[in-house]
Amino acid sequence: MKQKLFAELIGTAMLLISVIGSGIMGDALAQGNDAIALLANAIATGCMLFVIITILGHISSAHFNPAVSFAFFLRGELSAVMLACFVVVQLIGGVLGVWAAHVMFDLPIIQISQTMHRTGGAQWFSEILATLGLLFVIFGGLRARPDAVPALVAFYITGAYWFTSSTSFANPAVTFARGWSDTFAGIYPGHIAIFVVMQLLAVVIGHFSLKALFK
Amino acid sequence: MKQKLFAELIGTAMLLISVIGSGIMGDALAQGNDAIALLANAIATGCMLFVIITILGHISSAHFNPAVSFAFFLRGELSAVMLACFVVVQLIGGVLGVWAAHVMFDLPIIQISQTMHRTGGAQWFSEILATLGLLFVIFGGLRARPDAVPALVAFYITGAYWFTSSTSFANPAVTFARGWSDTFAGIYPGHIAIFVVMQLLAVVIGHFSLKALFK
Amino acid sequence: MKQKLFAELIGTAMLLISVIGSGIMGDALAQGNDAIALLANAIATGCMLFVIITILGHISSAHFNPAVSFAFFLRGELSAVMLACFVVVQLIGGVLGVWAAHVMFDLPIIQISQTMHRTGGAQWFSEILATLGLLFVIFGGLRARPDAVPALVAFYITGAYWFTSSTSFANPAVTFARGWSDTFAGIYPGHIAIFVVMQLLAVVIGHFSLKALFK
Amino acid sequence: MKQKLFAELIGTAMLLISVIGSGIMGDALAQGNDAIALLANAIATGCMLFVIITILGHISSAHFNPAVSFAFFLRGELSAVMLACFVVVQLIGGVLGVWAAHVMFDLPIIQISQTMHRTGGAQWFSEILATLGLLFVIFGGLRARPDAVPALVAFYITGAYWFTSSTSFANPAVTFARGWSDTFAGIYPGHIAIFVVMQLLAVVIGHFSLKALFK
Repeated sequence: MKQKLFAELIGTAMLLISVIGSGIMGDALAQGNDAIALLANAIATGCMLFVIITILGHISSAHFNPAVSFAFFLRGELSAVMLACFVVVQLIGGVLGVWAAHVMFDLPIIQISQTMHRTGGAQWFSEILATLGLLFVIFGGLRARPDAVPALVAFYITGAYWFTSSTSFANPAVTFARGWSDTFAGIYPGHIAIFVVMQLLAVVIGHFSLKALFK
Repeated sequence: MKQKLFAELIGTAMLLISVIGSGIMGDALAQGNDAIALLANAIATGCMLFVIITILGHISSAHFNPAVSFAFFLRGELSAVMLACFVVVQLIGGVLGVWAAHVMFDLPIIQISQTMHRTGGAQWFSEILATLGLLFVIFGGLRARPDAVPALVAFYITGAYWFTSSTSFANPAVTFARGWSDTFAGIYPGHIAIFVVMQLLAVVIGHFSLKALFK
Repeated sequence: MKQKLFAELIGTAMLLISVIGSGIMGDALAQGNDAIALLANAIATGCMLFVIITILGHISSAHFNPAVSFAFFLRGELSAVMLACFVVVQLIGGVLGVWAAHVMFDLPIIQISQTMHRTGGAQWFSEILATLGLLFVIFGGLRARPDAVPALVAFYITGAYWFTSSTSFANPAVTFARGWSDTFAGIYPGHIAIFVVMQLLAVVIGHFSLKALFK
Repeated sequence: MKQKLFAELIGTAMLLISVIGSGIMGDALAQGNDAIALLANAIATGCMLFVIITILGHISSAHFNPAVSFAFFLRGELSAVMLACFVVVQLIGGVLGVWAAHVMFDLPIIQISQTMHRTGGAQWFSEILATLGLLFVIFGGLRARPDAVPALVAFYITGAYWFTSSTSFANPAVTFARGWSDTFAGIYPGHIAIFVVMQLLAVVIGHFSLKALFK
């Protein structure tokens, strides 16, 4: 139990280090060409996801994502208590990861994002699809080829940075943590709640629709 | 049967989301450097192909492509009825994917492509080679290492975005659906038919020539 | 025998399509930023290598490279007759691939490269190291993990485009064929012979030095 | 024993060839866009790591890194004598690799880096995290899925180029060797010692903290 929570804490922190850190580095070097910055962001995040899911999967199942934990809860594979504990450490781990990235890049540790463009109906719809896709990948992957799940999630998110307008947060802990960073990957705190609502809505939709697809 | 068709519908929709969505995002961010936009397009499409073929392969064989379904039909591994059903859901799925991408990027849902440069003898020849190559990859891969087929198709298409002048549509459902999007990945509807003819011609050529190569 | 030669012909042609085609496309779109063009070139070539080695490996051993065939000959694993036949079809396949790429991109089929910068002692040394590295990868990979050879060669060459000054031709058939294309990946015919000499020299060096490393 | 040391020598040399060579090439072609140069640098290094760890892993365990050898020593899996020998050949191999890259790119062989920006508290902290992450990947990977270690290290470092401010040297031999190159990947010799101290500090921290995580 303690080991599981520690794994979720470390994994979510590492995930946010990759998201925030590569965003800062890409943005700093790309001379304003955001496509190159986003490419760095997407590749670095995918690389990290492959690493943390492969290594921590057998310890905590490697959620690093309250939406994923919630989906496992709905399927009866995670107790309510564990769900609550997982979400708490994921939120803490995410913020710790953001702060670690700030320290590494010599930025003020405590920041509040002023990135105002991550909102609006199109991006909310985008978050629903992005999260549904992630659940499709996880539960479909576990059924079709469990050993490929780390690669599947890594490739899915690397691609989803590009094919969704929101760049696929698809993760309430990541969304919350990115509110604490006024850098490339940040999101204005006032825009977080509705992103999270969309992500959780996708979990409910996915809970029923994925059953139809997989048996 | 219903599950197979549902898998083909979802998979083709996801494929088009990746093609159209990443084209829009890449184009929006690349400051006119089409090589960077195409890189995003190629990587995102490859990532998605790996995901949907791995996950849906054991359900519907993961065609997402009328040319591939036609090739299986010619080999006697898909009935005429199934071929017809597959093609219909692939066409519908493709257009639904395009529309979903438009909604995500806050664009008019119904669009007709005005991209006029996807035509001419060189690109028609390119579509023949691209489709032949895809069939080589699928049938050669199934024979040599079936578990590697998702990676083989993903890598092949990621590369073929670059080494063919048409960027390798190689798929009548993708070609048809891209006619419905006036964005980076679009194709003018009047240029679709001949692309599809070339793709189907390649299936016939491949049906005979690949037999010579693989036994 | 006929099937082996056909596999070498097709594979080498596909390899050159990927090298020449992606060079043309990258160069056309990258607005003069050769790093982006080379990235496209490297990724597309790596993707194709993974595909053709995986699929054709069990048929012809997937050399597509006279230097590799020569190395197998030196180890007594390929007869002199087979070596001669392999080299001939590799050379033919390479040129056919170049021509196919030219047709796809609507360029004159017959071209002679005027790219004059692929020469000089530094690049000749680079070709020795590049070819030695390739042999290290193939023979070391066959010993350590044969099923990983397609990925090993693909990753090695994708990287070697960048870490050698010659962009790692490392293949006499590829070198010869690239003389026939006055595009991004071309090489002036007068500079081919010495590249090939360096590649074959590396085979001889590798024949003795790799034995010391691998047992 | 001799074979192990030879493998460490060759592997570390190849690693530095990939780091220095791709830095030179990326920098030369990217027209001042350092993000593109760093992308080339990261991809080429990741490709090489996958190759050398896969191929040499069964010979010498594929450290190529005094910090990793030191970590194995702390765990009692490498003798003090072997540690000393490994470190010596890693340092020699690294410098040989740098020199080979200089020869390939027609640069003066003996150089001293004048790159002054690789210093300061933020980057020192970054080196601690980068090295801790590498140890997490290696020891966690060996426990969770040993056959995936080459891919895990390759992906981790490719990502870590972006998500750490120091671009993740995480290796005293690499740090030392990069002092000998006044090119894109260089580091001013006066800044090497403290980088190495941070890397070794991370080994000590990792020795205790990773035990808590992995059982």
